Amino acid sequence: MRVNKFIRPCRHMSSTTVVSLGLKIKPDFQPAPKLTVTDLNPHTVNAKYAVRGKIPTKAELLRNQLNDVDHKLPFTKIISANIGNPQQLDQKPLTFYRQILALLQYPPLLDDPRVASIFPKDIIERARSLLKQIGSVGAYSQSQGVPSIRQSIADFISRRDGHPCARKELIYLTTGASTAVTYLLTLLGQNEKTGFLIPIPQYPLYTATLTLNNRTALPYYLNEEDNWSIECDEIESIILDSKAKGIDPRCLIVINPGNPTGAILSYEAIEDILNVCAKYGLVVIADEVYQENIFDGKFISVRKVLLDLLQGPKADLYKNIQLASLHSTSKGISGECGQRGGYMELIGFDESVLEQITKLSSISLCPVVTGQALVELMINPPKEGDESYKLYYDETRAIHDSLAERATKLYDAFNSMEGVVCRKPQGAMYCFPKITIPEKAIKTAKELDFEPDEFYCNELLETTGICAVPGSGFGQKPGTYHIRTTFLAPGSEWINDWVVFHKKFMQKYK
Amino acid sequence: MRVNKFIRPCRHMSSTTVVSLGLKIKPDFQPAPKLTVTDLNPHTVNAKYAVRGKIPTKAELLRNQLNDVDHKLPFTKIISANIGNPQQLDQKPLTFYRQILALLQYPPLLDDPRVASIFPKDIIERARSLLKQIGSVGAYSQSQGVPSIRQSIADFISRRDGHPCARKELIYLTTGASTAVTYLLTLLGQNEKTGFLIPIPQYPLYTATLTLNNRTALPYYLNEEDNWSIECDEIESIILDSKAKGIDPRCLIVINPGNPTGAILSYEAIEDILNVCAKYGLVVIADEVYQENIFDGKFISVRKVLLDLLQGPKADLYKNIQLASLHSTSKGISGECGQRGGYMELIGFDESVLEQITKLSSISLCPVVTGQALVELMINPPKEGDESYKLYYDETRAIHDSLAERATKLYDAFNSMEGVVCRKPQGAMYCFPKITIPEKAIKTAKELDFEPDEFYCNELLETTGICAVPGSGFGQKPGTYHIRTTFLAPGSEWINDWVVFHKKFMQKYK
Repeated sequence: MRVNKFIRPCRHMSSTTVVSLGLKIKPDFQPAPKLTVTDLNPHTVNAKYAVRGKIPTKAELLRNQLNDVDHKLPFTKIISANIGNPQQLDQKPLTFYRQILALLQYPPLLDDPRVASIFPKDIIERARSLLKQIGSVGAYSQSQGVPSIRQSIADFISRRDGHPCARKELIYLTTGASTAVTYLLTLLGQNEKTGFLIPIPQYPLYTATLTLNNRTALPYYLNEEDNWSIECDEIESIILDSKAKGIDPRCLIVINPGNPTGAILSYEAIEDILNVCAKYGLVVIADEVYQENIFDGKFISVRKVLLDLLQGPKADLYKNIQLASLHSTSKGISGECGQRGGYMELIGFDESVLEQITKLSSISLCPVVTGQALVELMINPPKEGDESYKLYYDETRAIHDSLAERATKLYDAFNSMEGVVCRKPQGAMYCFPKITIPEKAIKTAKELDFEPDEFYCNELLETTGICAVPGSGFGQKPGTYHIRTTFLAPGSEWINDWVVFHKKFMQKYK
Repeated sequence: MRVNKFIRPCRHMSSTTVVSLGLKIKPDFQPAPKLTVTDLNPHTVNAKYAVRGKIPTKAELLRNQLNDVDHKLPFTKIISANIGNPQQLDQKPLTFYRQILALLQYPPLLDDPRVASIFPKDIIERARSLLKQIGSVGAYSQSQGVPSIRQSIADFISRRDGHPCARKELIYLTTGASTAVTYLLTLLGQNEKTGFLIPIPQYPLYTATLTLNNRTALPYYLNEEDNWSIECDEIESIILDSKAKGIDPRCLIVINPGNPTGAILSYEAIEDILNVCAKYGLVVIADEVYQENIFDGKFISVRKVLLDLLQGPKADLYKNIQLASLHSTSKGISGECGQRGGYMELIGFDESVLEQITKLSSISLCPVVTGQALVELMINPPKEGDESYKLYYDETRAIHDSLAERATKLYDAFNSMEGVVCRKPQGAMYCFPKITIPEKAIKTAKELDFEPDEFYCNELLETTGICAVPGSGFGQKPGTYHIRTTFLAPGSEWINDWVVFHKKFMQKYK
């Protein structure tokens, strides 16, 4: 029967057509070869993403190996310190968020009298009102996001910054903050000569997205010695240099609090940045996803400073600034990474540019609706007096304190190690210590085709099970070596393991 | 104090640097102009997406207008027939899915004795086991998706096709099916001369994504007279023609069941397609998201036919075929659009190509984890004997019957209209009737700067509140006009309204 199929003439083949498959009658062709990497989009092939790169990939293999009773590895578990993923480790989700999300997923619970004895009253009311706004979490929302949630975000931003002019039309719900970055970098890059100023070190999503889009990254170094500060004179030099080379600097990206640096920008630093952007017409992308992760100092949004300036005596200078600010439910105290909630606010953009962003969001249909609901819950937690307030307060306080404690422990540990200098993390979830790697280790790394910091991370992983990411994945000044690690992993045993490993590493390669 | 800020010298400005902002001391620059649409990525600007285009945008405005008591519109509600979004209309989510998702969001319910009286036992067990596999829905999963869910999908595909060789390494969980399309079209398009064969009419995500990536769409017309069948001799002509013009045809997209056509491909038709793809080395992208929406006939996956052929006497001819098949939780009987679940399976790709897809997925971190869980539930519904089985069966049956009934009603209504021909929908959620628009209406449309079918949709919307999408948004043979409408809207009143509208439209423009 299969053979018969082959002698059946091709359906719809007209008898007059010259072109013919000829296949079923006489299958005499050689099958065409398969595609390989050299046939693919070279920009995709060139993109790199270290957070889930070589070292984390190896860590996954070792994790599987640990399932083998006879694994022969010198450790019993993998410590995933490569990615800010709190709930993969021991962090529990906040009860407030999850109770409401459960009710949104299964609304009949709202009217079940038995549920009233399980969930606090304000939770049930809140879920009921949110559900009324959303309809069903299983329906596509408007591509830009549920209108009432956008309004709620606008109100939150207004309160946060003391500038009550955020409008829901300028808010776009997104899938985490990553989609926002993709939309912006794709749309704003006119051609391969469009330049994007990115901090070094940076979160590698930026370089990866620029490479995917074949746009030019214009790296500006953060000053490690001055707590990873931004040097505005260096930025201006880069702008002028790149213009001279035919590059059009279009956009400046700031990550505040810093990833991977953990530094927080001061009011003055943000003002400096805005001055440069005003002068050269740069769009500012403010990645502010760690705005709730503050251990030391105060978070000031770029928007606040901009709107202050727009009310100041030199307002005219700033009136053309275009600012996109990004936030996410993946970080903060909740760390709901897997729920993929986020938003961006766009200020000062021309209507014709906004239209394009709206179109891009419509092609993706809509961000996950439960993620949108989570954004609403993140920016409007329970209030004092609400039944769920105390538990929410206790849970968030405990998580915050525990993160602050681990940050300090890790920071102290690094600064006790030979040849290691670490800035005190003020915010975010990371330490980014500088490590002086001995010449002998650099030589060995080269022989094994590793970057020196990658070699260090590889040895660390193989010896202790700790998975951290080499600084080369984030960018660093040539000749310096760093490691990015989260301080999310529970306990302090792994920190002690790292101290012991480092001592031996230094002894071995001295 | 604000003024003082301006005379403060820029931080970090070295006194020796020649470059100087000069801003705070002497703010004499003119602010740079804002970006407008002409400064943007032209490929983004050129992309079109009709499902949420001009007519749906106008419908949203009218929906707002209806909130005004004195709205003066000749209808009382908007019928959203533009997008396959069942839960936006009256379709209720399936209890089975939502109970488990509620438990995954708030796991303490699993151990609450009160919950045992609300949820069936198999639901609680299933949620417990799924949660154990996932960890927390708030943690990033592996970028490719939770391993056990990928295994489960591999098992489902094996069962469905009777070919037990699906492997979890070849499954990628995605955000709906849209992300899969983005990954594939981005990666496989080597440069602007890479051609992608797309059916016309098509789901406009394909043309939009190709335009965004600046790749070449090679449209092949479906044969409306033969129930929207694929003409393999036409496809071969296009391949040869485009090669002669320096285009490299790389990939062929099939949508089965068809969107917007509602047609189902036969075994033989799929075999024809595979023959062409084998001969010319085309990657097949099989968009099979409507595989559960079948009213008439049987769904056969491209994979099944391929694996049959690979077991046949001419197996060698097909061994190089590369197939990506896409599925989603947004459609089917559940229609959980807002939950953004989906997957793709990749067969026959070179390892170096798979690595690139894995990297792309890692840059997006991970698909929403609750959406991944929903995929698992979709492919493994309750079994006979499970406590939740009867309700699941009743609910899905009722939805299926109601969809089939509406499909028939709408199909009958169209074929009763003057100058309208509609193929019987065999699958999916759409009718795509061909409408002979009178010359006078075409003339009026031109005067008002509308496409003729867009003009018809605009009149339909303004008269009845029904929002359908002009065929021009999906592609159609020149000189023919179509309308795409879902048959999801409840009741039959709107169908009657359409019949009345059409009569008057024809009378007016005859």
